[in-house]
Amino acid sequence: MSYNLLKGKRGIIFGALDEKSIAWKVAMRAHEEGAEFVLTNAPIAMRMGEINKLAEHCNAQIIPADATSVEDLENLFTQAQEILGGKIDFVLHSIGMSPNIRKGKSYGDLNYEWFLKTLDISAISFHKVMHVAEKQDAMSEWGSIVALSYIAAQRVFPDYTDMSHAKAVLESIARNYGYRLGRAKKVRVNTVSQSPTKTTAGTGVGGFDAFFEYADKMSPLGNAPADACADYCVTLFSDLTRYVTMQNLMHDGGFSTMGISEDIVEMISK
Amino acid sequence: MSYNLLKGKRGIIFGALDEKSIAWKVAMRAHEEGAEFVLTNAPIAMRMGEINKLAEHCNAQIIPADATSVEDLENLFTQAQEILGGKIDFVLHSIGMSPNIRKGKSYGDLNYEWFLKTLDISAISFHKVMHVAEKQDAMSEWGSIVALSYIAAQRVFPDYTDMSHAKAVLESIARNYGYRLGRAKKVRVNTVSQSPTKTTAGTGVGGFDAFFEYADKMSPLGNAPADACADYCVTLFSDLTRYVTMQNLMHDGGFSTMGISEDIVEMISK
Amino acid sequence: MSYNLLKGKRGIIFGALDEKSIAWKVAMRAHEEGAEFVLTNAPIAMRMGEINKLAEHCNAQIIPADATSVEDLENLFTQAQEILGGKIDFVLHSIGMSPNIRKGKSYGDLNYEWFLKTLDISAISFHKVMHVAEKQDAMSEWGSIVALSYIAAQRVFPDYTDMSHAKAVLESIARNYGYRLGRAKKVRVNTVSQSPTKTTAGTGVGGFDAFFEYADKMSPLGNAPADACADYCVTLFSDLTRYVTMQNLMHDGGFSTMGISEDIVEMISK
Amino acid sequence: MSYNLLKGKRGIIFGALDEKSIAWKVAMRAHEEGAEFVLTNAPIAMRMGEINKLAEHCNAQIIPADATSVEDLENLFTQAQEILGGKIDFVLHSIGMSPNIRKGKSYGDLNYEWFLKTLDISAISFHKVMHVAEKQDAMSEWGSIVALSYIAAQRVFPDYTDMSHAKAVLESIARNYGYRLGRAKKVRVNTVSQSPTKTTAGTGVGGFDAFFEYADKMSPLGNAPADACADYCVTLFSDLTRYVTMQNLMHDGGFSTMGISEDIVEMISK
Repeated sequence: MSYNLLKGKRGIIFGALDEKSIAWKVAMRAHEEGAEFVLTNAPIAMRMGEINKLAEHCNAQIIPADATSVEDLENLFTQAQEILGGKIDFVLHSIGMSPNIRKGKSYGDLNYEWFLKTLDISAISFHKVMHVAEKQDAMSEWGSIVALSYIAAQRVFPDYTDMSHAKAVLESIARNYGYRLGRAKKVRVNTVSQSPTKTTAGTGVGGFDAFFEYADKMSPLGNAPADACADYCVTLFSDLTRYVTMQNLMHDGGFSTMGISEDIVEMISK
Repeated sequence: MSYNLLKGKRGIIFGALDEKSIAWKVAMRAHEEGAEFVLTNAPIAMRMGEINKLAEHCNAQIIPADATSVEDLENLFTQAQEILGGKIDFVLHSIGMSPNIRKGKSYGDLNYEWFLKTLDISAISFHKVMHVAEKQDAMSEWGSIVALSYIAAQRVFPDYTDMSHAKAVLESIARNYGYRLGRAKKVRVNTVSQSPTKTTAGTGVGGFDAFFEYADKMSPLGNAPADACADYCVTLFSDLTRYVTMQNLMHDGGFSTMGISEDIVEMISK
Repeated sequence: MSYNLLKGKRGIIFGALDEKSIAWKVAMRAHEEGAEFVLTNAPIAMRMGEINKLAEHCNAQIIPADATSVEDLENLFTQAQEILGGKIDFVLHSIGMSPNIRKGKSYGDLNYEWFLKTLDISAISFHKVMHVAEKQDAMSEWGSIVALSYIAAQRVFPDYTDMSHAKAVLESIARNYGYRLGRAKKVRVNTVSQSPTKTTAGTGVGGFDAFFEYADKMSPLGNAPADACADYCVTLFSDLTRYVTMQNLMHDGGFSTMGISEDIVEMISK
Repeated sequence: MSYNLLKGKRGIIFGALDEKSIAWKVAMRAHEEGAEFVLTNAPIAMRMGEINKLAEHCNAQIIPADATSVEDLENLFTQAQEILGGKIDFVLHSIGMSPNIRKGKSYGDLNYEWFLKTLDISAISFHKVMHVAEKQDAMSEWGSIVALSYIAAQRVFPDYTDMSHAKAVLESIARNYGYRLGRAKKVRVNTVSQSPTKTTAGTGVGGFDAFFEYADKMSPLGNAPADACADYCVTLFSDLTRYVTMQNLMHDGGFSTMGISEDIVEMISK
C-alpha cells in the first residue's frame, strides 16, 4: 500500500545489509511512498550483503562509505545531492557494531580499544553524518533525521555490554545535534528505540533468543516487527511530524512502560 | 493536502469547541485524510462553541455526551457505531477543565471538591471512555486511541495547579488501559504532550503568555502549532504506527529535552 | 546502631499499622536516631493495629487523624507542635488504600466512586498535609517531607489498578508542592519508590507473590527490605540531603533500571 | 559536625584538585565522618593543584594515577588496600575533561580524536576503575561507588558539547556495572547529578555564568552548593542507603523537575 507520503523527497539510507535489515525495509517502504534515495554502507558490509538487489528494486544508487570517515561522508553527501538533484530531506542511520560483542568479551572484561571502536562506529558516526550535512548545508528545511536505537540505553541488558553505551551516546547526540539543526534549519533529529529484532546484527548478541521471547511476552502487542518499524520511520520522514524532535521514540509494542505482564506472572507462577 | 491515510476509518472525536481547538483541527485533518467520524462534546461546551460549523464541513454527526457519565458514553459508542456502520478505529480525547483554575484558586489553596472534579473531567473520563469501548467491544483490532496531555505531568508549571495532576493520571491511564486493550484487541493507547497552544482553554491559565514565550524561546523549532499537532494525531491514527503504545509522545518542538537554549542565555545575559 | 542523625528533630509519622509497616520501621529508626515525633493514623486503622506498642517504645504520643480531613490535619499539626515544643522538621506520609483493590474490582471494571476515594486517601491527603503545614507555618526551615510510592506510577503492574494512578498523583504532588514549600521555606519534598514489601497492606494486592519474586530475581541486590527503607528515610530527614527535592527516589535494589537479568533469562530458558 | 557515619570505612577519592573541587569537599566530610581513604589524581592535575594540603589535613596518602590507565589503576587499588589495611568500602569518581571544551571547539566542529579522549577520560575511566576493583576483588560487600554527573546527560546545554555525551556514558556505565557488582558483591553504583558548581573545572565551560544563574533562578532551593553535595555523598557511602543502586540521583535544588519558575516568569515578563 502507498500513501505517497514521501513523494518528491530525497534521502540517504545507511545500513541496509540484507532483507532482514530494518534499513532494508525502510528503503522498500520509502520507495513505495515515492521517495528517491541513495543507499550506503561500509565497503565490508556491502561485500557480505545483498544491497545490489535492493538498489535495483528501488532504482537507487549505492555509494559506499565508511561512516566513521568524515572524508567518505563528505563524498557521500556531495554525490547524493548530485544524483538526487537537490538537498536531502531525510536520513536513516542504522549502524551498530561492537567488536567486543563479536569476539564474545564479557562486560567485565572489555577490550578498551574495541570499546572506543564500538562508540565510534555506532554513535559518533551519527555526529559525523550531521556534521557533514551541516557543513555542506545539505539538508532541506524541515528535513528529518532518524537513528535506530535500543532500550539498553536506559536499562540493563547484560549481553549488550558496550553497545548499550553506544546507544546512550547515540541518543545524546540526537538531542544535541537536534537542537543545533533545529535552530539552524528546522531539521528534526530523533531516535527510534526498536524492539529486539531478528536481523543478522541483532541475533549476534548472546542470549538474544531469551530476551526476544521475554520482551515478546512482556509487551501487550508483542515485539514490534521490522516491517512496522519501517512504517513508523516513514511517518517520521513525512511532513506530518515536523515538530517532533530530540526525542527517543519507543517502537516496542509497549515493552518500555511495562512493569510486569500477566504472561510473565504465569510463567513465574509455574 | 491529503494522503488518504485514514481512508475507511471510523472515529470519535471529543472536545472540538471552536476553530482554535486542537480537536477541531484534528477533525479537519481526519476528514481530509478520508476518515468518517462523529463529534462529541459536553452539552454545555456545545452551547458555547461552534461545533455545528465543523460538523457540516466534515459531514459528521454530533452526539452530545458528558464524558464523566458512563451512561452518556454508552449511548455515544452505541450511536457512533450505528451511524458509522461498524467498529471504531480511532478516538481522540481532548478534554480538560479545572474549576480551581477557572476560579483562580492558587495551588496552596485548592478547593478539594473541585480538585476531584478536575480529575474526573480531565482524566478519569479517559478511563470511562475505554471502559465503555471495551465493554461494548466497540474498537476495531489495531485501533488507536489518543489523549492530549501537557508536560506539566512531569515538571512543575506553577500556574497549572491541579490540572498537572490530572495530566499525570491521564498518562497513567494511557499506560494501564493501553496494556489491557493491547492485549485484548491490539488497540494502542498513547498521549500526545503538546506545546502550550493558544486555544480558548489554554489561554485561560494564568501566566500563559509568559510560559508560551518561554517555551517558544527554549524550543529549537519553536512551539508546535495546533495544525502540526493535528497532523501528528493523523499519523497516530493511521496504520503506520501500530506498535507505538503506552507512550507519552512529546510534540513540542524539542522543549522537553532542552536544558537551556542560546535564546534564553541571551535573555539572561542582558 | 545510632548516629544521632535526627537529634533534636521533631516529626510526624503517618501510617504505622503494625510491625511489618514501613512507617513502623521508620518510627523505630527515627527514635534510635534521636528524633521526637508524634504518630498518627486513621481511627479505624488504629483499632486494627498495634500502634500503642510502638508509641510506648518510642515515647511518642498518638494523635488520631483521618488524613482526608483538613480539620483533622489542622488539629494534628496544632497538637504536634504543642507536644513536641516547636515547628516540625520531618513528615512521613505512608498512606494508601484502594477500595477497588480491597473488593477485587478489576481494572476494566473499576467503581468510579471508589476510584475517587483511592485518589483522595492515597494521594490528595498528601496535598492536604502540606496545605495545612503551610497554612499553619508549621514546618521548620530546611524541613523534609517524604511520601512512600511505588513504580506502578511509571510502569504497568496490572494488579495495582487504580492505586497506580494514586501513586502518579502522589509523585506529581511531591513535585508541585515541593516547588512551593522549597521557595517559601527551604522545605524539601520527595517520594521514595520502594520495592514490593510484605506489609499487611502490600500483600493485599492480587498476584503479590508473583511480582515480589519477579522483582527479587530482577534486582541485582534483591528487593529492598522495609528496614533498609527506614534507614533511607532517615537520611532523607537528616541535614545531609538538604538540596534533594521534588524527586522520586528509587529504593529498589536496582529494579527500576533493569531490562532483563541473568536470573530471568535462566527462568525463561528452562 | 560529625555523625561517625563512615567510621571504619576505607575509601578511594578521585579528583580533588583544589578546595573548590567537590572531591575535596567530599574528602573533608568523609574524614570528619571517620573514614580513612587515599586520594588520587592524575599526575598533571596534582602539579596544578594543592592536594598535599588536603592529604595532610585528612591524614591521607596520595597515590598518583592516570584513570585512563588500567595499569595505574591496578597499582592504585593494590596500594590503597595495603595502606588502608583491607578492602575498599567506597569510591568517588569525580573526573571530567574535554579537550574540545578546553580548546573552544564548538559542538558542530568537534575534533573527533579529542571527542574519544573526552569519553575515555570522563566516562570510560569509570568502567576501568570498576573493572580493576572487580578483578582484584577489592570492594567490600555492600560497598558504594559514586560518580559525579550533570543533567546535560539528559537535556541539551549547548556549551557542554561532547562532555554531555561523556556524562551519558558515565550514567550508563553506572547502571551496567552496578548490575554486575550488585549481583557479585552487593556493591552499589550510582551517579550524583549535581547543580552547576563554581569549581575550577566547572567555570571553564563557556556561558557558565548564564546557566548558573538560570539554574539558580529555576530551582526552588537555588543551586546545590558543593558542600551539600559532599554531605549527600556521605549518605550514599554510609550503610543507610544500601539498596539504592544503578540510579542517577539529582542533587540540584529541584532544577530537574521544574518546567518554569515564578522567577523566570518575572524575568520574561519584564
